[in-house]
Order: sequence, then structure tokens, then C-alpha cells
Amino acid sequence: MAAVKVFCYAISTASIRVILCLEEVGAEYERVNIDMATGEHKSPAHVAKNPFGQVPAFQDGDLVLFESRAIGRYVLRKFKASDVDLLHGSSLEESAMVDVWLEVEAQQYDKAIFPIYYQAMIIPCFYGGTTDEKVVEENLVKLAKVLDVYEARLSQTKYLAGDFFSFADLSHYPVTHFSITIPQVAALFDARPHVKAWWESLESRPASKKVAAKIPQLS
Amino acid sequence: MAAVKVFCYAISTASIRVILCLEEVGAEYERVNIDMATGEHKSPAHVAKNPFGQVPAFQDGDLVLFESRAIGRYVLRKFKASDVDLLHGSSLEESAMVDVWLEVEAQQYDKAIFPIYYQAMIIPCFYGGTTDEKVVEENLVKLAKVLDVYEARLSQTKYLAGDFFSFADLSHYPVTHFSITIPQVAALFDARPHVKAWWESLESRPASKKVAAKIPQLS
Ligand SMILES: N[C@@H](CCC(=O)N[C@@H](CS)C(=O)NCC(=O)O)C(=O)O
Ligand SMILES: N[C@@H](CCC(=O)N[C@@H](CS)C(=O)NCC(=O)O)C(=O)O
Repeated sequence: MAAVKVFCYAISTASIRVILCLEEVGAEYERVNIDMATGEHKSPAHVAKNPFGQVPAFQDGDLVLFESRAIGRYVLRKFKASDVDLLHGSSLEESAMVDVWLEVEAQQYDKAIFPIYYQAMIIPCFYGGTTDEKVVEENLVKLAKVLDVYEARLSQTKYLAGDFFSFADLSHYPVTHFSITIPQVAALFDARPHVKAWWESLESRPASKKVAAKIPQLS
Repeated sequence: MAAVKVFCYAISTASIRVILCLEEVGAEYERVNIDMATGEHKSPAHVAKNPFGQVPAFQDGDLVLFESRAIGRYVLRKFKASDVDLLHGSSLEESAMVDVWLEVEAQQYDKAIFPIYYQAMIIPCFYGGTTDEKVVEENLVKLAKVLDVYEARLSQTKYLAGDFFSFADLSHYPVTHFSITIPQVAALFDARPHVKAWWESLESRPASKKVAAKIPQLS
């Protein structure tokens, strides 16, 4: 069986989400670098795979997918083992909780933390521009509220969807890997002991460590 | 079996997404109105169901869910019939395409059309405020690009995920129901024949008509 391919960029959070899914299930895969620095993600060859001209894209034989959370679901379903299914697909209730907290990641967490990460790291480190501190401040307030909900949740269950690690937790890894180096973000985590312990448990997973070792530093 | 409950508000697009799922599968359900006009969505009773203080929330016995796309998945899985599964869960490839286009709805379409809808309808009709035309213009440009991708896709397949109606299509209904009455949005649809035919096919479904009949007009 030919390995699946991920068309990705080393510091792209959406790409890292897919790579981490592949590492968690132990699938064989090939990384194909799309050089965003030279605009390769807007090339006709890449747009044929991802019509929005973004990374990642994914290929498994004739099947071509895009959107990292959709690719992640496919990977976790295709390569699931009898004892490891990060979607908990065999239980209606557990898979519903995974879906709820996966939506929370995309609709609440990412919407607050991504603008902070973008302003505080991508703009200065990647584009050589100046951080808009107002955007950072506004989103730190939003993120604090989201993390209050997480703190309450994680004081009841070990992980977001329940007492089991799932795609909902995993999906938070990429943007947090970068953002936790921003002092104001780290302070929000430090002030919430259950959130902090949860993040440490995500960071210390063997798959996360393996993926993190290949992510270049932004600085 | 006690009917499931949806805690919703009549003009909330996220609420309408859930109601439409329930109507498509013909499930029995009870609507519990949460009066957003008086701030009931921030009441302790509602926040206990949706910790982000938003509508909708959903209850099936002891199971309480929030986030409309996660609730939708649960409803479509729980009440699926042997001949109607709007998630196409039994096929790895088809369900992957449903997931891809459902993510596109949330990550690309909604991000462009929602700010237009909010500025052109919610602000003047609900809050009595003034539309920020610059936000409308910027997002019309984004929406046009998204709809170009849809036009190309829908000239190859009848619906977004393939030649079958799915949750990916359904999920576009609520915000489009309102936004299509904005002349500049209607013009973008009119200029793209496959997108227009697709929208007409969504609008003319019996479940959509039944749901639309209960949505108050915004004006
Ligand atoms: N919702 C998409 C987001 C993909 C995305 O934003 N990718 C970024 C890199 S992390 C990108 O390609 N940006 C370039 C662009 O949008 O033109 C996903 O989850 O895959
Ligand atoms: N991502 C959520 C969005 C829910 C949402 O934004 N609901 C709106 C009404 S459509 C709301 O409750 N807004 C009030 C608020 O955010 O405080 C979902 O899909 O359920």
C-alpha cells in the first residue's frame, strides 16, 4: 500500500494538526513540502488539491482532501486500531462529546488564540511587521473567558470530551505549541491549574514530542 | 421515549441548523425558546447547558450538547434511517467528502457571509444600529472567491460532497436563508448558475420549507 501524502508547510498549524493525527495512529506517510515563503500554495498544482490555495492538502490514492479537521477525521477513522479510536466512533454519546469539544476548539478557542499568535509571532517573525497590540489585548480577554470554561470542564473530566484523550484535545496542540511561548498566554495557562496540567499531558505524549522536534522555532 | 429538546431562538442561524437536521430526519423534538432579546442565553440555567452562553443547546435524556454542528452530527447519527444518512457514515470516502465540505462551510463560507449578514441585517434590524459598509464590501470580495470555488465544484457534482445531498449542504441553509435577501449577495448567486441551482434545490426541500415558514422576517 502506497503511503498517504500530506502537502504541508513546517510551521503551518493546520498542517501540524494532520501530521499529529498520523503520528498518533502510527500511520506511514510522506510529507511533501509546499513552500509558502515562495507562494507555492497558490500554484496551479497545489490549488488543484486545495481549491482555497491553503495548506494542508492530503492524498490517499485517488482521494484528495483538504481542511485539516476533515483530514484528521479521515486519518483517525482509516487507521484506527481496536483499542485506539480518537473519535470514539462506536459510542454515540462519546463521539458526540468529541464532536462538541472539537467544535469548541474551532469556534471558540482558535478564534481567540489564533489572532494573538498571528499578531505576536507570525507578523514579526515571518513578515517582519509590527504587532497590533490592540488585537492582542482584545483576544487575550476572549481567550481568558474560553479558558475559564476549560478550567471548569477539566476539573470534572481528565480530558475535554471525557476521561479519555481524543481528537478534540489533539486539535488544540498546534496553535498552543507556538502560543504558549507568548508570556501573556503562558500566564493565562499558569493561572488555571487544570488547564495547565491538561496542556502538560498533551505536550508530553510521545507523538507530540516527535512532531515538536521537527517544528522550526519562530523567532 | 421522551422527545429531545432544542434550546433555541427563532432567528438564530445556529439554532436553525439543528432544527433543520431534526426536520430532515423526521425526529420528534421540543423547542424551548431562549429569549435572546432579554439576555436569557446568559442566565445560569442556560449557561449550565451551554457554557459559552450561546444558543443552541440540546438535551437528550442525560446528554446535554452544544455547538450546532456537533449537535447536528449527533441528530443525524441517532435518527438516521437505512436509506437516509446525511453523514454517509458507512463509506470512508463519502463521509470524508461530507466532512471536507462541512469544514468549508464553517471555515470559508460562514467566515465570509456571516459578517455581511450581521452588518446588513442584524445590526440595523435587531440592534437599530448602522451597517459598516466597509466590512460588507470586504467580505463580499471574500464571498465571491468562495463562491467561485463552489461554482467549479457544483459544475462537477450535484451537491458539495458528491451527487448526494448531505449535512454539508444543509449546514449552509440558515445564514443563506437570510443573506440571500441582501441584493449584493443575491447578485453573487445569480452570477453563478450552478450555485444558484444548488441553492434553489436546498430551498425547495420539504424540510427547508417547513422550517422557513416558522422563521420570522428580519426587517
Ligand atoms: N481551515 C483550514 C485553514 C488552513 C490555513 O489557514 N492554512 C494556512 C497555513 S496554517 C494557509 O495556507 N494560509 C495561506 C492562505 O490562506 O492563503 C484548515 O484547517 O486546513
Ligand atoms: N459556534 C456556535 C455559534 C453559536 C452562536 O453564535 N449563537 C449565537 C446566536 S446565532 C449566540 O448565541 N450569540 C450570543 C453570544 O454569542 O453571546 C454554534 O454553531 O452553535
